[in-house]
Amino acid sequence: MYKCDVNKMANKINTFAQFGDAGHGGVTRYSLSEEAIMARDEFVKRMEAIGAVIECDDLANMYATIPGSDPEAKRIVMGSHCDSVRNGGNYDGILGVMGAMEVLETIVEQEIPHKHPMTAMIFTNEEGSEFPPCMMCSGTMCHDYMPERFRGNFEFNKMMASESIWNPGVTFGEKLSTFKYKGDIANRMSPEKYKALFELHIEQGPILEDAGKDVGVVTCVLGQMIYRVKFYGQAAHAGTFPMKKRKDAFFAASGALRYLHEEIDKLGHEDLVYTTGEVVIRPCVNTVIPDFFDFSIDVRHENPEVLDQVRNILLSLDGKEWDGCPCEVVLGWNRDTVYFNEELVGYVRESVEELEIPYMDINSGAGHDAQYVSYMIPTTMIFVVSKDGLSHTELEFSTPEQCTNGASVMLNAVLKADKA
Amino acid sequence: MYKCDVNKMANKINTFAQFGDAGHGGVTRYSLSEEAIMARDEFVKRMEAIGAVIECDDLANMYATIPGSDPEAKRIVMGSHCDSVRNGGNYDGILGVMGAMEVLETIVEQEIPHKHPMTAMIFTNEEGSEFPPCMMCSGTMCHDYMPERFRGNFEFNKMMASESIWNPGVTFGEKLSTFKYKGDIANRMSPEKYKALFELHIEQGPILEDAGKDVGVVTCVLGQMIYRVKFYGQAAHAGTFPMKKRKDAFFAASGALRYLHEEIDKLGHEDLVYTTGEVVIRPCVNTVIPDFFDFSIDVRHENPEVLDQVRNILLSLDGKEWDGCPCEVVLGWNRDTVYFNEELVGYVRESVEELEIPYMDINSGAGHDAQYVSYMIPTTMIFVVSKDGLSHTELEFSTPEQCTNGASVMLNAVLKADKA
Repeated sequence: MYKCDVNKMANKINTFAQFGDAGHGGVTRYSLSEEAIMARDEFVKRMEAIGAVIECDDLANMYATIPGSDPEAKRIVMGSHCDSVRNGGNYDGILGVMGAMEVLETIVEQEIPHKHPMTAMIFTNEEGSEFPPCMMCSGTMCHDYMPERFRGNFEFNKMMASESIWNPGVTFGEKLSTFKYKGDIANRMSPEKYKALFELHIEQGPILEDAGKDVGVVTCVLGQMIYRVKFYGQAAHAGTFPMKKRKDAFFAASGALRYLHEEIDKLGHEDLVYTTGEVVIRPCVNTVIPDFFDFSIDVRHENPEVLDQVRNILLSLDGKEWDGCPCEVVLGWNRDTVYFNEELVGYVRESVEELEIPYMDINSGAGHDAQYVSYMIPTTMIFVVSKDGLSHTELEFSTPEQCTNGASVMLNAVLKADKA
Repeated sequence: MYKCDVNKMANKINTFAQFGDAGHGGVTRYSLSEEAIMARDEFVKRMEAIGAVIECDDLANMYATIPGSDPEAKRIVMGSHCDSVRNGGNYDGILGVMGAMEVLETIVEQEIPHKHPMTAMIFTNEEGSEFPPCMMCSGTMCHDYMPERFRGNFEFNKMMASESIWNPGVTFGEKLSTFKYKGDIANRMSPEKYKALFELHIEQGPILEDAGKDVGVVTCVLGQMIYRVKFYGQAAHAGTFPMKKRKDAFFAASGALRYLHEEIDKLGHEDLVYTTGEVVIRPCVNTVIPDFFDFSIDVRHENPEVLDQVRNILLSLDGKEWDGCPCEVVLGWNRDTVYFNEELVGYVRESVEELEIPYMDINSGAGHDAQYVSYMIPTTMIFVVSKDGLSHTELEFSTPEQCTNGASVMLNAVLKADKA
C-alpha cells in the first residue's frame, strides 16, 4: 500500500486557505475571480514542479498530467473544484484538487510504476455562486452524454449567457472570455482520451462522524428535485388596512411551510432531506403588507418513489388558497439518482480496507461534478468525514490526517484502476 | 362656501401621474430623483402662474406663497410630499400638494379675501424609499420641537449621512447638495413665521369607503412601534444534513409568526393592526439551511396600553428557542399617538358639514409629515376616501370628485383659520 504525506497535505490546506481568506476562518472564492486565479496559479506552480503538463479547455477546466509507461493509454483523472460559496470553508471542492495533486506528487516522488497518464483537474464554477447553475462546466462538458431530459439545463449558449447574481448584465461568457485560464475546446475531457474519474470530497454531512468513520465509499448521488412555492397576496398600508381584510403572502407562506413539514414528516422516511433555503418577498418594506412570498424547497432521496410521495404533497398545494392567498407550485430542477461505476467503487472499497481506515458505504446528498462525468466515463467518489457535518459555512473542518487518509485511498484506488 | 374645481383637479392628477410613470398605472418617484424634479418644476410653473413666490429651505422643502391683506400676519401652510414608494400610486402625498395648489388657485381666481399669507408646500423625502427613514425632512425640521426621546431619530448630521438603499455609499446629504431645489436654512418653516399647517391626504385604508364617506376628519396619528424578530440557526448543506439535527432559522420564524398572530389576535382589539412586511434571510441559497431569519413587525394603535400588551407578547419571545433557534427581539422604532390641534380639527369638521359632504372622524394609522409639524405649530389633516383601502400600490385610487371634495374642505377650513 502506498500512502500520502500528512505534512504535505497540511501545507496545501494552509496555502489554499489564503486564496480568498474572508478573515474569519473560511474563504469566499467565486469562480473566475482574482481569488480563483491565485488558487489556479498555485496549482500550476506545484504541478509544473513535478513535471506535469498543464492544459485548459474552453470552459477553463484545467488539467495537469504526468505521463504513464504506455503513451497510448487513456488518462486516469482525479479532480474537483476550487471555487467556493460566499463565506464557505477551506475543504469543499478544494480538497479534491489538493488530493489529486498529492496523489500525483506521491507517484512522482515514490516513482510508483503506472501505465496510464495521470491527471489532476480543476472544474470551473461548480458552486454557481456568482453565475448559476451549479456544476455548470461539468454539465456543459458532459451535455452530449446526458439523458436527453437534462440536456436543456446545460446548453453551451445558455451557460455562457448566465448572468452574474451580483452584477446584473455581466455574463459568465463575458467573464470567461478574458479569463487567464480559458483554453481550447480540444482539451476537454472525452471518452476517447480519458479512462476514469475519481473525485475526493468532504462528506458535507454528519453520517461518517456519527458512525466513527474517516472515509465514505460513495455509491450514488441522490435524486433531487427543487420546487418554488409561491403565494400571491395584496399589498396595502401597514397602518391603515384592517387585519380582517388582509391577504398577507408571508403569513400564508408561514402556514404552508408548517403544513409541509407536518405532512412530509408523516411519511416517516428517516433518510429523506428537504430544505427551504431561498426566499423572495415583495415589496419587503416594513410598512407594507407583502403581496408576494416565494420559497424554494429542495428534496433529496435515493428512491424515486419517495420523491414522488413528497411531490404529491407539494403539488396538493398548487392552486389552493392559504390565508386568502392563492398558492402556485413550480418545478425548478429535477435529477435522477446517479449510481457510480461498480468496478471503481470496488477499487475504492478494497483500498480503504487494505489501508485499515475506518469506512462505510455512503450515498451523496450533495450534487458533484462527478455525477455529470459519470454519464461520460466510469466515475466514482471518495468522501472524507466532516466535523459536525458542517459545510457551505466557514466552520467546515476535517483534520489533515483525515484529508490525507482520503488522498491515500484515492492513490491506491487509482493504481488499481491503472492495472485493470 | 367656496368650492374647488373638479376639472382643474383632474388635470392636476393626470399631469402629475406622468412624472415617474412606471407604465402600469402608478409611479416610482423617489425623493431627489429626476422624476421628483419634474414634479417640482410643474409645481413652480403653476404656482408662479398665480403670482406665488417660491422659496426652498436647506432640506429642499419647497414653499409657494401668495400674500394676504396683512403683511405682518403669519403664513397658513398646506402641503404634503411628492415622492412615492417603488411602484406606488398617483395619490399618496401628491394629492396634498395638488390640493394645496388648488386652494391657492381658487383663492386667487375667485379673489377670496384673506388676511394671512397662504402657502402651498412640498416636503422632501416623506417616504424614505431610497434614503431612510420616512418623514426625514419634516422630522429634521421639527427636531428642536420634538419630545426629547424622539430627537435622536432626526439629527441633521445623521439624516445627511443616510445611505441609499440602492447605491450603498451614496448619502442623502451628497445627493441633496447638488439638488436643483436645495435652498437656505432661513426659509425653513418656524413658529415665528407660520400659524398653522393643514395636510390633505388619502386615507390609505378602507374605513371611509366601508362607511360610505368621502372625507375623514383626522383627530390623531396612531402610536406605532416597530420591532425586529431575529432567529439564529445553523447553516448546513441541503443534501447531506439530517432533518433531526437541523436548526433552520426560516422554519423557526414561521412557527413564531403563527404563534404571534394567535396570541395577538386573542387580545381581541379590532382596531389593532400589525404587519410583518420586511424579511432578511441568510444565506438565501436553495441548497443551504438558513442560519438567520429576521422579520419586522409594525404595530399600531391609539391606546398605549394596547401597544404594551402586544409588546409583552413580543418580548416574551426574546431569549426563547424556536425549533432549536434562539430568538432575539429588538426595538426599531417607537412613537406616541399624536393628537391634532382641536381648533383646526373643528374648522375641518365645520367645513365638511357646511359643504354637506359625507364624512366621519377618523384616526391615521399611517405616519405623515403633519405629525412632526404638530410638535411645532397647530396642525391637522383631512383624509380623502381610498378605493378598496389600497395604498403603496399602483392600484391606489380616489375619484377626481372625491379629491376635489377634500380640497374644498381644506379651502374652507383654511379660511376659518384665517379669520381666527
